[in-house]
Amino acid sequence: MSGFRVEVRVMPRAALLDPQGQAVEHALHALGFGDVGRVRMGKHLVLELKAATREEALAQARAMCDRLLANPVTEDYDLVVDGDTSR
Amino acid sequence: MSGFRVEVRVMPRAALLDPQGQAVEHALHALGFGDVGRVRMGKHLVLELKAATREEALAQARAMCDRLLANPVTEDYDLVVDGDTSR
Repeated sequence: MSGFRVEVRVMPRAALLDPQGQAVEHALHALGFGDVGRVRMGKHLVLELKAATREEALAQARAMCDRLLANPVTEDYDLVVDGDTSR
Repeated sequence: MSGFRVEVRVMPRAALLDPQGQAVEHALHALGFGDVGRVRMGKHLVLELKAATREEALAQARAMCDRLLANPVTEDYDLVVDGDTSR
């Protein structure tokens, strides 16, 4: 068993409204940052994970996203295991 | 003026408690993911930004983080402009 560090980015789907991102966009405009266009806001998680191989770590992380970390209806996620990228 | 896409990752400082991360960690354990160690949870923002140069886009994004997006006492941030990485 080795230790892996998994980075997970969970973002609202492009087609959906993103009220958090819109609030940030309006606040930035109010602060004078007029050159900002669309803002999207999501979550970033960093997990420490024990697994036999990088592939197993990735599979486990994917299962966690599917079951808890991301809402499959409204969100998309990306995973990076220890510098290695995969969907 | 060109358009830039800025990715911002805002994470709780390593030395601080992260109640959101702890809640996710406990939920993952309860779901049977026993190999998960520490979980940290932060924000991920994607900004569309108009600027004359990449450097100006980066400087503007940094100012946004300092003034609104990150809490300087409790959070650290990383910026990536269109694939180019910087603190």
